[in-house]
Amino acid sequence: MAKQVYSFGGSKTEGDRSMRDTLGGKGANLAEMALAGAPVPPGFTVSTQVCNMYLAGGNKVPDDVEEQMAEALARLENDMGKKLGDAKNPLLLSVRSGSKFSMPGMMDTILNLGLNDEAVEGLAALSGKREFALDCYRRFIMMFADVVMEVSKSEFEEILEEIKHRHGAENDMDLTAGQLAEVVEAFQAHYRKRLGSDFPQDAHEQLKAARDAVFRSWDNPRANHYRKMNDIPHDLGTAVNVQAMVFGNLGETSATGVGFTRDPATGKKVFYGEFLVNAQGEDVVAGIRTPRPIAELEGVLPAAYNELREITARLEQHYRDVQDFEFTVEESKLYMLQTRNGKRAGAAAVKFAVDMVEEGLITPKEAVTRVEPQHLDQLLHPVIEPGSKSALKTLTVGLPASPGAAVGRIVFSADHAVAEAAKGNPVVLVRAETTPEDIHGMEAAKGILTSRGGMTSHAAVVARGMGAPCVAGAGELNVNHKSGTVGCKGAVLKEGDWISIDGSTGEVFAGQAVTIDPDPSSGEFAQFMEYVNRYRTVGVRTNAETPRDAAAARKFGAEGIGLCRTEHMFFEDGRIDHVRQMILAQDETTRKAALRQLLPMQREDFAALFETMDGYPVIVRTLDPPLHEFLPKREELMVQLAELRAAGEDNGKQKEIADLLERVEELHEFNPMLGHRGCRLGITFPEITQMQAQAIFEAAVQCAKKGVEVIPEVMIPLVGNHKELENQKKIVTDTAEAVFAAQGRRVKYMVGTMIEVPRGALTADEVARHAEFFSFGTNDLTQTTFGFSRDDSGAFIGDYLDKGIMQEDPFQVLDASGVGRLIEIALEKGRKTRPDIEVGICGEHGGDPKSVAFCVNAGLNYVSCSPYRVPIAKLAAARTAIEAESATA
Amino acid sequence: MAKQVYSFGGSKTEGDRSMRDTLGGKGANLAEMALAGAPVPPGFTVSTQVCNMYLAGGNKVPDDVEEQMAEALARLENDMGKKLGDAKNPLLLSVRSGSKFSMPGMMDTILNLGLNDEAVEGLAALSGKREFALDCYRRFIMMFADVVMEVSKSEFEEILEEIKHRHGAENDMDLTAGQLAEVVEAFQAHYRKRLGSDFPQDAHEQLKAARDAVFRSWDNPRANHYRKMNDIPHDLGTAVNVQAMVFGNLGETSATGVGFTRDPATGKKVFYGEFLVNAQGEDVVAGIRTPRPIAELEGVLPAAYNELREITARLEQHYRDVQDFEFTVEESKLYMLQTRNGKRAGAAAVKFAVDMVEEGLITPKEAVTRVEPQHLDQLLHPVIEPGSKSALKTLTVGLPASPGAAVGRIVFSADHAVAEAAKGNPVVLVRAETTPEDIHGMEAAKGILTSRGGMTSHAAVVARGMGAPCVAGAGELNVNHKSGTVGCKGAVLKEGDWISIDGSTGEVFAGQAVTIDPDPSSGEFAQFMEYVNRYRTVGVRTNAETPRDAAAARKFGAEGIGLCRTEHMFFEDGRIDHVRQMILAQDETTRKAALRQLLPMQREDFAALFETMDGYPVIVRTLDPPLHEFLPKREELMVQLAELRAAGEDNGKQKEIADLLERVEELHEFNPMLGHRGCRLGITFPEITQMQAQAIFEAAVQCAKKGVEVIPEVMIPLVGNHKELENQKKIVTDTAEAVFAAQGRRVKYMVGTMIEVPRGALTADEVARHAEFFSFGTNDLTQTTFGFSRDDSGAFIGDYLDKGIMQEDPFQVLDASGVGRLIEIALEKGRKTRPDIEVGICGEHGGDPKSVAFCVNAGLNYVSCSPYRVPIAKLAAARTAIEAESATA
Repeated sequence: MAKQVYSFGGSKTEGDRSMRDTLGGKGANLAEMALAGAPVPPGFTVSTQVCNMYLAGGNKVPDDVEEQMAEALARLENDMGKKLGDAKNPLLLSVRSGSKFSMPGMMDTILNLGLNDEAVEGLAALSGKREFALDCYRRFIMMFADVVMEVSKSEFEEILEEIKHRHGAENDMDLTAGQLAEVVEAFQAHYRKRLGSDFPQDAHEQLKAARDAVFRSWDNPRANHYRKMNDIPHDLGTAVNVQAMVFGNLGETSATGVGFTRDPATGKKVFYGEFLVNAQGEDVVAGIRTPRPIAELEGVLPAAYNELREITARLEQHYRDVQDFEFTVEESKLYMLQTRNGKRAGAAAVKFAVDMVEEGLITPKEAVTRVEPQHLDQLLHPVIEPGSKSALKTLTVGLPASPGAAVGRIVFSADHAVAEAAKGNPVVLVRAETTPEDIHGMEAAKGILTSRGGMTSHAAVVARGMGAPCVAGAGELNVNHKSGTVGCKGAVLKEGDWISIDGSTGEVFAGQAVTIDPDPSSGEFAQFMEYVNRYRTVGVRTNAETPRDAAAARKFGAEGIGLCRTEHMFFEDGRIDHVRQMILAQDETTRKAALRQLLPMQREDFAALFETMDGYPVIVRTLDPPLHEFLPKREELMVQLAELRAAGEDNGKQKEIADLLERVEELHEFNPMLGHRGCRLGITFPEITQMQAQAIFEAAVQCAKKGVEVIPEVMIPLVGNHKELENQKKIVTDTAEAVFAAQGRRVKYMVGTMIEVPRGALTADEVARHAEFFSFGTNDLTQTTFGFSRDDSGAFIGDYLDKGIMQEDPFQVLDASGVGRLIEIALEKGRKTRPDIEVGICGEHGGDPKSVAFCVNAGLNYVSCSPYRVPIAKLAAARTAIEAESATA
Repeated sequence: MAKQVYSFGGSKTEGDRSMRDTLGGKGANLAEMALAGAPVPPGFTVSTQVCNMYLAGGNKVPDDVEEQMAEALARLENDMGKKLGDAKNPLLLSVRSGSKFSMPGMMDTILNLGLNDEAVEGLAALSGKREFALDCYRRFIMMFADVVMEVSKSEFEEILEEIKHRHGAENDMDLTAGQLAEVVEAFQAHYRKRLGSDFPQDAHEQLKAARDAVFRSWDNPRANHYRKMNDIPHDLGTAVNVQAMVFGNLGETSATGVGFTRDPATGKKVFYGEFLVNAQGEDVVAGIRTPRPIAELEGVLPAAYNELREITARLEQHYRDVQDFEFTVEESKLYMLQTRNGKRAGAAAVKFAVDMVEEGLITPKEAVTRVEPQHLDQLLHPVIEPGSKSALKTLTVGLPASPGAAVGRIVFSADHAVAEAAKGNPVVLVRAETTPEDIHGMEAAKGILTSRGGMTSHAAVVARGMGAPCVAGAGELNVNHKSGTVGCKGAVLKEGDWISIDGSTGEVFAGQAVTIDPDPSSGEFAQFMEYVNRYRTVGVRTNAETPRDAAAARKFGAEGIGLCRTEHMFFEDGRIDHVRQMILAQDETTRKAALRQLLPMQREDFAALFETMDGYPVIVRTLDPPLHEFLPKREELMVQLAELRAAGEDNGKQKEIADLLERVEELHEFNPMLGHRGCRLGITFPEITQMQAQAIFEAAVQCAKKGVEVIPEVMIPLVGNHKELENQKKIVTDTAEAVFAAQGRRVKYMVGTMIEVPRGALTADEVARHAEFFSFGTNDLTQTTFGFSRDDSGAFIGDYLDKGIMQEDPFQVLDASGVGRLIEIALEKGRKTRPDIEVGICGEHGGDPKSVAFCVNAGLNYVSCSPYRVPIAKLAAARTAIEAESATA
């Protein structure tokens, strides 16, 4: 049997901070602190491997581990000059969990272990404080019952409250020794009543039971849930830290507290934390007594305060990061119980990093590794002021589809949203689901809430693109557009009622929350992004159609447009009618006439984008969605017609709708995702591609003449066969030449394709004969590789995640084994044909840090994402480059 | 310049039959016949390469080819002792096309070339027959005008008719020399009028112009269309055969004819053909005079007849195949103008092959290569008696979706089909499209006709599975189910009217056609399949659900069931209600109760299949389609509800429909193909998989106890992630063990998966950890690899084929570069994990010869196809194995 138990503090420290895998974070840091000379109560750590042995081996700890523990305990007893379970001179222990990654509050802790009916008297005699000894004992009984025997703490708290009330005691500390003895007796009686056995008196049995309970707590539902939420593997296990107790509850010269070396919310360089005099650790967080700001400790226990400041400052230097620490003062003597790198809010993460570079504590490269992509995400969106949540009624929790908080009055239609917004009223658009026809309303609204659809539903995708907060798929909501109400578990809200949504958490509140706006233009942010850019090896572009989005993206540092979805422009006012004329045209002449109306509009769209992106490439994708998306819905027309017919009136209207329905029926598709769309449209209707190419090149020449540096890249979507691209490319290049000849000016341009069906990737060597660039459309590529419809997979993806069939939703995190493999195949084949081919990604994954990491490692030239995710993608790219570099080194 | 002109006959023969690429079929066979000593008029062949040079080079023949032609012509003149264009002793030529693959009637021929106003007199003097000379000249003018100058032959025929009429001549041969001179003069006048120039008098110019016209005819629309239909590459080009004329129109001792060494329709060993006395070649096929059966030639020209029999018998021996020949007798002397392997009907192909093996002419292996898969297809389905077509009105031509002819009265609903069929009335089910709910009607009908959907639409797939004739996607039909009419281009048929469809050609006729039934049990067929089985290296299974289909497949030689789609069983009478209960269940208990009702029914289904397939494996696929397929259609419910509401009556009914609609809405999917189906259902509702597994194993044990050898293989559909399979496999194996324990008997079984999404193929190494077999579901794999919906791709696949973007519909012929590549990846990865994994294909492609060839070459263990395609798949497999063997040798 390998070594599984490691001593620290006292006469021997066997671990250090490099051993987090074995000792957990807490154990590793206790050892490290001891090595660094901090006053750490001695103890030992039972390794995480033992946890796995215990859980795998039918809840049994191997005998030789028991032997190693006995040895470590003997050394601890020796160091402390006390004995576990000794009636006269008892050693008391804390038993705490500690896994590799911090899981705050998820697992269990037991304090004051070792007390029994005799030892409590010994402790009383030794300390000279009977109240203290009994206070420790009643705490221990309650914790042991709760953690080890699963009898809820609240049952004991009720008993305690009853006794306090009977004796007129306001605080726990007001109880006399006699009253505390009554509490202990009542607790023991309750223990016996609930469990049918006496509270265990054997301190060694207590220790084993506590240790095993900590091991079991690794597998409790909330810990499992936490790990799932935070991507922590389930097979790490937790260590158990057994440590000599020190007592903050030994009277007015004792205290306990927690703190940070800097403010973890704002990042400011202030000593930060709270403490309680005459208390044990859990009192600070339990909320029974209100803790005091740590600065006040200086007045209460000045020596301990100064030592604490000195030691924690030293630890910050030692760890070269902000420390989150726990301490206890026992009769004026300071003990450090824990230190670790502090969790931090987004703003603080950036400020810490930048400040520490300026202090010379860390390098710019390290600064980049200190900020997580989700830190930036927080920083770039408004958040709900945490205090204001309690005043609101939580309606439900949906999918956190697009981050940020939004507060507004409920509207149920896009038109209402526009009308109310025009009056200056903030609104939240509430829909069962959204469609491309709702885009103007989505733009007008502060946020979007839907009851159907997943993380990549229309609402979610468009909202992320706009940077608008969105909660999607809140299935408990019953949205009734007709009656203008939204119900949820009995509550019913109507149009005009206030509602608040948090797109970062999925929370939906009835009422008006207070929000805090971010400040991305702060000096630290700019400085930090400068560090990021030093290490980044791939470009970051944005997906944008409107000059507004493009300008926002430029502000966030986008280096071009990776995807302009021209069809989004088709839904704007004054256009959709021409688009419908084009679609309903029965012949080429009528269709061309409608296209001529659209040409100048598209030209102006493109010109505005080229100007905004002066000097950067702009990839324009030709028309992609199936044409029926631009027409009224088939079912609605059918119902309308049935109603008109049943009413038996207005034959003219009936005929009109019947005719429209006929064309809609012709265009109806069983699986629109796999239907007549993408380049298939351009092949059937070459005049559409021709019009769009003309608009692009006329706009480009027009801008170039004004001195704008234009770099147009025309992208043909959904290519699975090189001949599709050959066909469409010819239209584009012929049109370009015609425009250049007519305008007397040329501009440089490229023609390329989206790789978004598997066949495109599998035949990329052929496709690259015509394509000057590839852009991976990973949304569709994920759909086709898995055979999952984004719009429908909500019905089973939840089950898949719950049952562990998938670790992540592949629409959020790029699937490396399947989709990623196709990307690799396409890269290899594409570059074989055309070594300098430009390759990027423009699916939703372009803004997801893990997916960006994949793209960097695969060797893509750029990623493209929503404007508001540009800094996140940049950070993810830089971090990946740094990781790759250190992996090679 | 390489050699491009090859002489034959006469003093030198430079080619032989191995040179079809260069000389075309006709040229190669003329050379070969000359080498074999047959009396071939001398001539020369201009190579196919020259055709390509001509078409690519701006319709110009290179100068050095002109030189080679001049040399060959000089040799020909020398051999014949005549000179082209000579006024006294003119050499007359035939100029005929001839490409590598026979394209009958698609390209052009010119006879009697070399005549002009002077030479015609020379020919008259030489032959002593002025009528003959003038007859040749008027034929030549007409052919030249038609083929070279594109002035239609019919214009000249009108003139000829007018002159004949004026002179009271019934036949061409009745015209006197004077009258023929009048014809020649009128033809020349018409030529001048239409073309503004005189008929060319320079014989060498005539020759070049004729040659070039033949080259151009390669590229004419009907030739292009024919090549597309017959998969003949466009870049082969045609050769031009220039040959000395021999004359069948030199009087009563001259004749011309065509024939086959055996009957190409029935395969019987009889000399077969037709001839005309005093005629030129085109008269036989032109239909102006009725040709006489070739047997009568013996009485007319006995020596020539005997020589013809002797020579053609020799040629059959020489070529070791049935010969299709052309001959001319000039003044009692026989000349052979052409021989080639004869085209043959399906029945004849099989009989030829078997007879020739018995005659010792060919080996059994050669026999297998002599029968094309489509020959067997003809043989296995009823056909419309060709003569009966002319009596019918052709309504339209749709897609030939499932071969065979069907004749019946029109019905528009599945229920009517069943009711009429029960009365013994033959019916054809006519629908806009079919759904799984129509299956009972499809089974009852003689054939199925739809106006929508492609070759792999529901109607097409199910019909092929049943062996029922089907014409799908006949877009010109306007099917109105409500009014019970089907309109087409003005014609309107109603329920009960007779209709006839030919599923092999896509033709639809109004009225009652006469059909001919095939005889697949003939001795030759069985003997031929015995040869096939000798060379076949892969197994052939069938896709079948009903014992009827399974029995049919066994009769056709299926070696097991490769795909039993359990959901087809769900639509049967008395089941669909339980299925709907299962789907509408709001909780597991209700769902399980419904499943308990289905269990005994499914068990009996499987038991019947195991019995039919005694000794062979039966692959049962667990439930695959999305659940909403079993419910009424959403749009229909919406309309129904709107109507009820508008009518303002029957609130109970309204509520019932509204409730049903609510559940249907919940299950509604935007892209059902990519939705909640396949193993995703079994993962969300494990009780469905459990019920099906229980039914399978209970049936298996029940049969095994009766002495049936059962080999169940349970197939989990739509796996893209090995954990999906792991999850479902556990349910299957747990259920199997439970059944075996309860029944006290075990049976051997396997659990495997369908690979039908790209991710399944890309991660096949992981999937194979759990899968004991793979079956490629190439229908869905094609859909996901291309991103094409089978049901919707009809909107653009036509354009793709027309524009040459695709050569073949990938739903008909397996796409080797994309889908095939994924199959190869999956095989390689799957066998790396599990070398003995059983691998097959069960998509529609399993019955397509080219696709079967791919599967054989890729190394699959078996293919599985519709019952009626089993012999075809076997033949394709054997032929591929033979080809592979000879490629290696």
